[in-house]
Amino acid sequence: MSKLRYGIVGGGEGSFIGVVHRNALALSGQFELVCACFSRDSGKNQRTAASVGLDAARVYDSFAEMAAAEAARSDKPDFMVVTTRNDWHFEACKAFLETGFHVMCEKPLATNTADALELKRIAKANDLLLAVSYTYSGHVMAMDARNRIRRGEIGDILMVMGEYPQDWLLDMADGKDHGIATWRIDPKIAGGSNCIGDIGTHIEHTVSFMTGLKIVKLCAVLDKVGEGTELDNNAAVLLKFDNGATGCYWCSQVAAGYDNALKVRIFGTNGAVEFDQEASNYLKVVKKSGPVEIHSRGRGYVTAAAAAYAVIPAGHPEGYHNAFANLYLSFAEAVKDKQNGTLKPLCEYDFATVDNGIEGVRFIEACLQSASAGGAWVDL
Amino acid sequence: MSKLRYGIVGGGEGSFIGVVHRNALALSGQFELVCACFSRDSGKNQRTAASVGLDAARVYDSFAEMAAAEAARSDKPDFMVVTTRNDWHFEACKAFLETGFHVMCEKPLATNTADALELKRIAKANDLLLAVSYTYSGHVMAMDARNRIRRGEIGDILMVMGEYPQDWLLDMADGKDHGIATWRIDPKIAGGSNCIGDIGTHIEHTVSFMTGLKIVKLCAVLDKVGEGTELDNNAAVLLKFDNGATGCYWCSQVAAGYDNALKVRIFGTNGAVEFDQEASNYLKVVKKSGPVEIHSRGRGYVTAAAAAYAVIPAGHPEGYHNAFANLYLSFAEAVKDKQNGTLKPLCEYDFATVDNGIEGVRFIEACLQSASAGGAWVDL
Amino acid sequence: MSKLRYGIVGGGEGSFIGVVHRNALALSGQFELVCACFSRDSGKNQRTAASVGLDAARVYDSFAEMAAAEAARSDKPDFMVVTTRNDWHFEACKAFLETGFHVMCEKPLATNTADALELKRIAKANDLLLAVSYTYSGHVMAMDARNRIRRGEIGDILMVMGEYPQDWLLDMADGKDHGIATWRIDPKIAGGSNCIGDIGTHIEHTVSFMTGLKIVKLCAVLDKVGEGTELDNNAAVLLKFDNGATGCYWCSQVAAGYDNALKVRIFGTNGAVEFDQEASNYLKVVKKSGPVEIHSRGRGYVTAAAAAYAVIPAGHPEGYHNAFANLYLSFAEAVKDKQNGTLKPLCEYDFATVDNGIEGVRFIEACLQSASAGGAWVDL
Amino acid sequence: MSKLRYGIVGGGEGSFIGVVHRNALALSGQFELVCACFSRDSGKNQRTAASVGLDAARVYDSFAEMAAAEAARSDKPDFMVVTTRNDWHFEACKAFLETGFHVMCEKPLATNTADALELKRIAKANDLLLAVSYTYSGHVMAMDARNRIRRGEIGDILMVMGEYPQDWLLDMADGKDHGIATWRIDPKIAGGSNCIGDIGTHIEHTVSFMTGLKIVKLCAVLDKVGEGTELDNNAAVLLKFDNGATGCYWCSQVAAGYDNALKVRIFGTNGAVEFDQEASNYLKVVKKSGPVEIHSRGRGYVTAAAAAYAVIPAGHPEGYHNAFANLYLSFAEAVKDKQNGTLKPLCEYDFATVDNGIEGVRFIEACLQSASAGGAWVDL
Repeated sequence: MSKLRYGIVGGGEGSFIGVVHRNALALSGQFELVCACFSRDSGKNQRTAASVGLDAARVYDSFAEMAAAEAARSDKPDFMVVTTRNDWHFEACKAFLETGFHVMCEKPLATNTADALELKRIAKANDLLLAVSYTYSGHVMAMDARNRIRRGEIGDILMVMGEYPQDWLLDMADGKDHGIATWRIDPKIAGGSNCIGDIGTHIEHTVSFMTGLKIVKLCAVLDKVGEGTELDNNAAVLLKFDNGATGCYWCSQVAAGYDNALKVRIFGTNGAVEFDQEASNYLKVVKKSGPVEIHSRGRGYVTAAAAAYAVIPAGHPEGYHNAFANLYLSFAEAVKDKQNGTLKPLCEYDFATVDNGIEGVRFIEACLQSASAGGAWVDL
Repeated sequence: MSKLRYGIVGGGEGSFIGVVHRNALALSGQFELVCACFSRDSGKNQRTAASVGLDAARVYDSFAEMAAAEAARSDKPDFMVVTTRNDWHFEACKAFLETGFHVMCEKPLATNTADALELKRIAKANDLLLAVSYTYSGHVMAMDARNRIRRGEIGDILMVMGEYPQDWLLDMADGKDHGIATWRIDPKIAGGSNCIGDIGTHIEHTVSFMTGLKIVKLCAVLDKVGEGTELDNNAAVLLKFDNGATGCYWCSQVAAGYDNALKVRIFGTNGAVEFDQEASNYLKVVKKSGPVEIHSRGRGYVTAAAAAYAVIPAGHPEGYHNAFANLYLSFAEAVKDKQNGTLKPLCEYDFATVDNGIEGVRFIEACLQSASAGGAWVDL
Repeated sequence: MSKLRYGIVGGGEGSFIGVVHRNALALSGQFELVCACFSRDSGKNQRTAASVGLDAARVYDSFAEMAAAEAARSDKPDFMVVTTRNDWHFEACKAFLETGFHVMCEKPLATNTADALELKRIAKANDLLLAVSYTYSGHVMAMDARNRIRRGEIGDILMVMGEYPQDWLLDMADGKDHGIATWRIDPKIAGGSNCIGDIGTHIEHTVSFMTGLKIVKLCAVLDKVGEGTELDNNAAVLLKFDNGATGCYWCSQVAAGYDNALKVRIFGTNGAVEFDQEASNYLKVVKKSGPVEIHSRGRGYVTAAAAAYAVIPAGHPEGYHNAFANLYLSFAEAVKDKQNGTLKPLCEYDFATVDNGIEGVRFIEACLQSASAGGAWVDL
Repeated sequence: MSKLRYGIVGGGEGSFIGVVHRNALALSGQFELVCACFSRDSGKNQRTAASVGLDAARVYDSFAEMAAAEAARSDKPDFMVVTTRNDWHFEACKAFLETGFHVMCEKPLATNTADALELKRIAKANDLLLAVSYTYSGHVMAMDARNRIRRGEIGDILMVMGEYPQDWLLDMADGKDHGIATWRIDPKIAGGSNCIGDIGTHIEHTVSFMTGLKIVKLCAVLDKVGEGTELDNNAAVLLKFDNGATGCYWCSQVAAGYDNALKVRIFGTNGAVEFDQEASNYLKVVKKSGPVEIHSRGRGYVTAAAAAYAVIPAGHPEGYHNAFANLYLSFAEAVKDKQNGTLKPLCEYDFATVDNGIEGVRFIEACLQSASAGGAWVDL
């Protein structure tokens, strides 16, 4: 089986998430980087290319240039990866879709619903795959949770509790600086939201991924803790889903003692599952009237479709990079199926689709709309 | 130091919470039971009296009779304990207050705010103490949390997350019976709320106890899971406090896998505390930028005023009965101070006052009002 | 059902374990204290008697006097409780057994095997019950572990890992004082061992209680950490059991960060159980190839014979006092059965018998013998 | 900074650890695979080469051939990686050292001390680096533990508790098969030990890495659970270290409920550290008389030399592959320093040296010697 070829935008010196994508793709052993625009800064771009051993001829100073040049090659990449700042996602995806490339884009897909819908239209018009890299649904045990819920193990879903506390902005609420992460709190770059947009959206997707439920209305309280804070850094949201279930989401960047604690608890009439990304090799499973069970990735009882992603045995922790690798493996399967004309319905793959990306953008907008109306209920 | 004498209403054969009060009072070694109305059922009443070794002459078939008879004695009790069903709290407290007794009443103090305020008026008119037995604030480490917050350790409070999931009604949502606990879901006995009234109110009080914050407005979603369910068994509430902090409370009796998991997390500008009553001998403490610390009851670093209640060393678990005993020890201190004319401001004691009880009833009413208005925001 | 009457030796002002016994007996609501020798110090003895409301006529300044006087009464106690320092256990038990009383004695039963065997002889000669209060086997979930092992759930036992770390002597290893607990490290009072005798013996009993296995040989390393330390404060022991299983026990009083962390793990051919007394309301249960299950006291799946001791629902923590109360409830059942001529085989009760007490003393002696021979293997 | 070039032996289709090495090297983004002998099976070898995109001209069917051919090239690798079965480690390392290559070898370095010492001699004679890939000391928080101990944070070490339970052989003890892992229990391949050699040795190294202590004597009990079992699958070891500290190690492959639970606890006069590889992003730290602290990889309080390896922020789990990558990054630093003539003392790097590898082999041999003498104490 030969490797898939990909190009990437982002991941230059000093960047975070683009490097994670590149390293995760390498970790999987299934992909080959063939072209890149690591940075708009030409020097930085070339230095990164040299450090990763990429042919300078296929290093570009803009994604537009890269799209045009690569589209003309016979050995062009199988797909493109977009890991820029949020406000460039739309233009980058558009450029690649219009030149014939499948795309994996960092979340959020766009900074507003109109743009997200436009990307969907373009992808469809060009018959291409557009995926969004919501990391946490790439964990084996998040997939296991989905599989268990899909096959009815916990019955009908009653409530969903999601939380995602961090505390890295607590210092900034005191007026201290946080370096490169600062763009997240700049309205000009991040868009209308910081906390909901950066991490609340991960709760939304993880729940959507596991349950398939659609949000029908929500009510949100957004806080801007600290003097001079322009965007939300703490938020609580009540939700109603299309099956009548209730939800309660909390995300925060000013919750002392928490690193990156995405936790989702799904309760049903016959049991519950609980996933904590900081302990992502385990899944808490409860069958009604039974004890709490701690399921471990790699064990024989893990659902087969999830277990298929595990590359090391139980008790050997797979981490953040492995989750990313899994997203790409799922996406690669779809890309190959597409190339072979055997694409299955997208819900049978494990990556987030353009529709998931649109839902994510809508969720952010609805939270902002509710909050600006004093916590009024907003229909989705 | 001689023991304080007390009388009790409730705790007959087959009852739960009245027996817990009696056993906790015995555990402390500081109290003597001198009169009782264990049950309105005379046979049950006498059998319980015999089993606990109480003089039959001071066993009564109604609290009214008990109040009248005991008030006339020279060796009358120092205080009365009311552990009846919710709908009798008002009449029982009234009867004892009007005949000159200090009272410790189970929560909720009354089934509506008007009654709660009337009890406050009567207590004041008779110069008597009226306390409410919110169990969980009796834990040493809940007191330690309060002490740390009061002395400013976590700075200004930013957010409060409270939750209290159980799952004992999950079967009942399927139409199965749960024996004596069933009155909680009967509107005629429990009042307008089941879940918020029974357990949500513990979140409200624990937070109030620790932080001193007042709720200024809230928005609640109450669910009635299961066919034929008349009262709420799952609820989520967003709150705003008088200092601008936000809160999010969730309580449930249909959350598979949870026993009685009251957990309160208080976040401030300089740190956080987290109390979990199922692990009540520990308190999670975070100082900004520092690691999570697991504080253990009985250790030298526990705040002195809380440590004073600990009766066994660290690592020897104190449980539910010890928490009740602590509430009574604090109440006893106030009763003795009152008897000696040295009563301090009530906030210097560690039991819940009539004002806390009124707040609890108001909280329940506000949640019901919000929910019946489709989750509208309600001012308190 | 009327209360059983008991007398107690120990528990005067400033003492620890005697007060725990008295409070635990009160907590259960099933026992009445009728006579006592709280302290050899007459003033202290009388003050304690006054504080607990005990008739001064039945307060004695020596256990010998108490045994003689009480034996002559028609309303004499049903049993006696011995909670003195270790070096008086033998004489006190002897005095009560020879005057016709059943006895519950604190562990260790005696300071040497010869004395322990002599107590067994006297008890048998007088047809009386002699029990030893190993606290931790009184926890509901320790009993549940035993029941599961007895009915074969984990198959044949392969290995046993036991540990009991504390750190209260770490300061003393630096030359600091620890008040009343100091007698434990004084060879004249504690006997030949501190750590093994005080806490190692709890590992030994908890394992014996759960598994029924007999130790056939062991090899022990005893450490005396700190200048001037006369007795062991850290110990590691390898063991072989009569069924061929292996064991490894570790106890310490100088293990920074540990309060009182008795933990016992029993591994078999078909599964495992794990009991941690600091989280004594839970039991970790594993069935081969299945997930780790967290069993919670009070749930329907708890073995019936253990569940019978639970007095409050799941999630309402029972603590150290409840464990003591359970031991006394089991002992009380045997005392009543004995009084009624219906005594069952002792293995059908849940308290530790004189034989368990003897095994405990032998274990201590064997550890000392091994250590003094440089860690040689010693047969039991 | 250009990538280091490496060659590898092992990691063909169906193999485990060789693939982990290759993927971890890729994950780091700092290394380029230039030659390999993936398998002695030529077809498998070539198929693996094709799947990873390696030039067929540099794929060899034996390590001897690879050593000879690569040594003659001008673009030869900077180092070689040996991930074969245990019994070929010696010959493979020897071949590469004698042809001038630095080597990273899987543990154990050799199947006996004589061979291990011979490899040291050869490496020294050729002035080359020989390292051993003990995975778990590659975790950032394992390095943090070492740094804290080195700078005296926990004072003088008193005791070390190490354990490493697994349960994958529990089925085999029933006669079931475990596929490729089976060679571990075959004396002809694994050498004299299974459990001690495969996982006990990880306890030994992790402790050695963190503390620098040398074992002076030990006493071991090795069990062969299950009919027909030829090698140990459970073992308990008591140890004495050169500073007078005591140790107790337990490893098992038949401990129901455990995946891969290496846990090391180091206790000193001023505190303790505790590392659990299944939760390898955290380190439990205790300062005497203070609370248990949960330190999180990526936080500001992590020691700088350890934090330097972290590639993603706190709360984003680094896993097993990241630990391997860290070992290689440390080894790469030494290789470059060696190439530049600036090699520092080896204790200033974070990989395991040939001396650590020799200690590991000696530890296994001493355990076997003790066990075969009935658990006698053996000097090292």
